[in-house]
Amino acid sequence: MNRAIVIAMLAIAACAPAPQGQTDADYAAIAAAESEFGAAMNAGDMARVAAIYSDDAVLMPPNLPAVHGRLAIQEFLATFPPVGDYKLVAGETKGGAGLVTVRGQYSMNLMLPGASAAVADTGKFIEVWLKQADGTWRLAWDIWNSDIPLPPPPPAK
Amino acid sequence: MNRAIVIAMLAIAACAPAPQGQTDADYAAIAAAESEFGAAMNAGDMARVAAIYSDDAVLMPPNLPAVHGRLAIQEFLATFPPVGDYKLVAGETKGGAGLVTVRGQYSMNLMLPGASAAVADTGKFIEVWLKQADGTWRLAWDIWNSDIPLPPPPPAK
Repeated sequence: MNRAIVIAMLAIAACAPAPQGQTDADYAAIAAAESEFGAAMNAGDMARVAAIYSDDAVLMPPNLPAVHGRLAIQEFLATFPPVGDYKLVAGETKGGAGLVTVRGQYSMNLMLPGASAAVADTGKFIEVWLKQADGTWRLAWDIWNSDIPLPPPPPAK
Repeated sequence: MNRAIVIAMLAIAACAPAPQGQTDADYAAIAAAESEFGAAMNAGDMARVAAIYSDDAVLMPPNLPAVHGRLAIQEFLATFPPVGDYKLVAGETKGGAGLVTVRGQYSMNLMLPGASAAVADTGKFIEVWLKQADGTWRLAWDIWNSDIPLPPPPPAK
């Protein structure tokens, strides 16, 4: 075997494990899992819901601290009030190169209208950053919620 | 030039435009933008904050509908109460192949303890799905918040 052929084989071997984007089958698998999520929630079967999460998943409900790990998520879901007509509608789905997502925590002091002192708020967020055509990164999706529990509702009359 | 060298060059050329993951420079650019975000929030300069978002960005605050587009985001931020000590702490950052993120809306009827009727809730979510070592997709990060406004605080004494 001559040296050029060896170089060609090495070049092809180096090429083989190139990072792959998501396939149609990947997106179909996620859509199926979304559908199962809704069905399991409406069935009240929290073991089925929890099975959709990864072992080290992070659930970030409003007005409560984040819940870490599938077992803790299942325990949390079991405390959730009974749910009916649960529905998820996917608006946009994104993946692949040029996308970075960040999960973190925020804290701030808010000067609410009419309040005599600042109110401290802490919570959690997910950001989705997309690389723009000019190479800059811009924040495309940004969601947050507080860790501070809501006050209890007023007692029924 | 012999044929094997041409094959080697073609193999290398085919390899070159393989999809690329994010570089260290990409992650550094995002970290710098996060830092600018906090500084601009604390300066109360909402034009600076809005400039970090993409043209068609989606902001998803708690207890309010989503805000679409950079101009609407800047207008929304201008209505935000004055903020001090604003801080973002990135916990985890993920990107590249094997990651898909979904933005959407949920709706459900909640049977709250002590309530005589179900309460309808609608809101928004971001999910981050990660492909597992066995090829399955699992929900790794999940955050949501309601579109329903909070009740006004009780009047000050």
